[in-house]
Amino acid sequence: MNYELKNIPVRTQKPRAEGFTMAMDKGLSLREVEDFVDSCGDYVDIVKLGWATSYVTKNLKEKIALYKAAGIPVYLGGTLFEAFIVRGQFDDYRGVLDKYGLEYAEVSDGSITLNHDKKCDYISTLAKQVTVLSEVGSKDAAKIIPPYKWIEQMQTELDAGAWKVIGEAREGGNVGLFRDSGEVRQGLVEEILTKIPGDKIIWEAPIKSQQVWFIKLLGTNVNLGNISPSEIIPLETIRLGLRGDTFDMFLDGISL
Amino acid sequence: MNYELKNIPVRTQKPRAEGFTMAMDKGLSLREVEDFVDSCGDYVDIVKLGWATSYVTKNLKEKIALYKAAGIPVYLGGTLFEAFIVRGQFDDYRGVLDKYGLEYAEVSDGSITLNHDKKCDYISTLAKQVTVLSEVGSKDAAKIIPPYKWIEQMQTELDAGAWKVIGEAREGGNVGLFRDSGEVRQGLVEEILTKIPGDKIIWEAPIKSQQVWFIKLLGTNVNLGNISPSEIIPLETIRLGLRGDTFDMFLDGISL
Amino acid sequence: MNYELKNIPVRTQKPRAEGFTMAMDKGLSLREVEDFVDSCGDYVDIVKLGWATSYVTKNLKEKIALYKAAGIPVYLGGTLFEAFIVRGQFDDYRGVLDKYGLEYAEVSDGSITLNHDKKCDYISTLAKQVTVLSEVGSKDAAKIIPPYKWIEQMQTELDAGAWKVIGEAREGGNVGLFRDSGEVRQGLVEEILTKIPGDKIIWEAPIKSQQVWFIKLLGTNVNLGNISPSEIIPLETIRLGLRGDTFDMFLDGISL
Repeated sequence: MNYELKNIPVRTQKPRAEGFTMAMDKGLSLREVEDFVDSCGDYVDIVKLGWATSYVTKNLKEKIALYKAAGIPVYLGGTLFEAFIVRGQFDDYRGVLDKYGLEYAEVSDGSITLNHDKKCDYISTLAKQVTVLSEVGSKDAAKIIPPYKWIEQMQTELDAGAWKVIGEAREGGNVGLFRDSGEVRQGLVEEILTKIPGDKIIWEAPIKSQQVWFIKLLGTNVNLGNISPSEIIPLETIRLGLRGDTFDMFLDGISL
Repeated sequence: MNYELKNIPVRTQKPRAEGFTMAMDKGLSLREVEDFVDSCGDYVDIVKLGWATSYVTKNLKEKIALYKAAGIPVYLGGTLFEAFIVRGQFDDYRGVLDKYGLEYAEVSDGSITLNHDKKCDYISTLAKQVTVLSEVGSKDAAKIIPPYKWIEQMQTELDAGAWKVIGEAREGGNVGLFRDSGEVRQGLVEEILTKIPGDKIIWEAPIKSQQVWFIKLLGTNVNLGNISPSEIIPLETIRLGLRGDTFDMFLDGISL
Repeated sequence: MNYELKNIPVRTQKPRAEGFTMAMDKGLSLREVEDFVDSCGDYVDIVKLGWATSYVTKNLKEKIALYKAAGIPVYLGGTLFEAFIVRGQFDDYRGVLDKYGLEYAEVSDGSITLNHDKKCDYISTLAKQVTVLSEVGSKDAAKIIPPYKWIEQMQTELDAGAWKVIGEAREGGNVGLFRDSGEVRQGLVEEILTKIPGDKIIWEAPIKSQQVWFIKLLGTNVNLGNISPSEIIPLETIRLGLRGDTFDMFLDGISL
């Protein structure tokens, strides 16, 4: 760090098993990717090319290569997986992963209705090819999944071979884990954590108040996702108790 | 595209008569323009230098040249036209268009009160010099124009020589076509479309929910405007049914 | 400017005693800083590296050097000062200012409880080393400071050696000078101005409606702060009456 401060919590280092940050790239240019990894590379553990933006992204190979060169793996958003599945093109999807040399993939059912056993089959199959992140939660604000279902789905998806499970929030932070207003479904999160180990979960938390909430509940090294590139540095300060929102978190034993 | 997916709707290609996207540049640096046209050039049909930002923009000639080199024409926001008109400097405005080699201009009355015959005179006069976009709708949220007036103004402005008419929304998406809350004035839009052909209209729709609404109503190749540079790739996926919001639009004949 | 318009108010020029703009950099990369000063350098008088982002910023020396080369001084957010103070590391903080060759510093108590005499002592001490900006107002929305206290604190901080005082708003524009909703505490601002000269105050106003409000109250050359880099050009047009929001401000003696 640039200078010494006492009572700064210990952040995990790359490659991180916990405390990692998933950033969402929804259309950066190649030079913007260079800028991003230059300023934030140490703090970003994995990049998602949001939903199916990869379909219309120019220089996709070069973009993935830039991230790889910076030690940051890339995966394609779950909506793209679903777009292939709904069209009966699962094999084509696997071909895309190969073509672009991807080592991670997301399996989700945020926009499609997928029998859960079938979803777990996809996870198992893909887990032989890549590291799988699976996502629980609908993108439809009207579809409320009760907590016991979240838990059941998360557990069976982990059992099927998912490396970690993602709690849905979208780019807007207003579905799945969150209410329309962006407020956390606190009871849901707490109930999930009674059964699923926190380090197996990535919480999508695009809005600052959501990030703060999770860091206050689960500490510096909580796994957070769907972070905008411009919010990576701010998030890192929130994790460290160096922004107003978490300023008091790590001051035990200190008095002014 | 980077890979093949079935049931993707056909997008028009440049130069587009329909289905085009107008982006708003409100102060990009030259290098940011390079990044923008590099990643989004195929999806942007015209760029507006928002309101009168061109007045304080450094390297204005170079900026316009960068867009031109990428095949993207540039025009100056309607508020600038109004700033010249209200000062009695119409001839000076025409000089600015010449000085910067602009081939498009906007005529609007969002911030000034302009006799409508006079507005049409400006359109006619400018149409001899450049391609004219005219804008209907006030920037003042309190000035509600009834639907029949929108239609009357749009028609007479097209008759006066406007290439297309723009439905006002501002950068914020909270006036003109939209309520304070950003919600679409659905009845207004539908009534306009009973009289004015959709391809003659550019709908300003800076907010995602607004873009989704128009695409659901008018399809992939609706004309949309005031799109932020960072939302061009996301918009393109919404047009193609590749984001959650429009995921189901083009799946006829497909069942999981 | 790029072309001549009548009735444009006179903006102060650099180095500005009044009418200056403080931008907030919360994590720009070096190349983004180059872009920023290239397009906005004339309109930015000072840059704050927001709160304690400097702790996790890569190439901090190079970043400060880029701004300096463009004639823009840099200071570190007040939260960083507070992070050092709460840890009993004031001398270390002074060392940081030296190490990075900083000529400005902020003294604040937005996240800590600091005896006001003690705060003034810090101002006095630092004023011997650098130019001090002091900030009044809590980051805690629940801590409402009555107007007479704002005035008392601002005056004693100026007396203690602060160059200017800053009215708190955070990046979100929803505390201090503003209500939760972002609305200005109008009575507070007006009462402050009965006692403290406007040119001694920098109003944090990150949201457009807040900027407009202050420009309408105090004119083109009001001091504004916490402006996002992407809003510098838009703000400049608002100051000049060249955006819808202030379009009518400078049209006296003109009639269409």
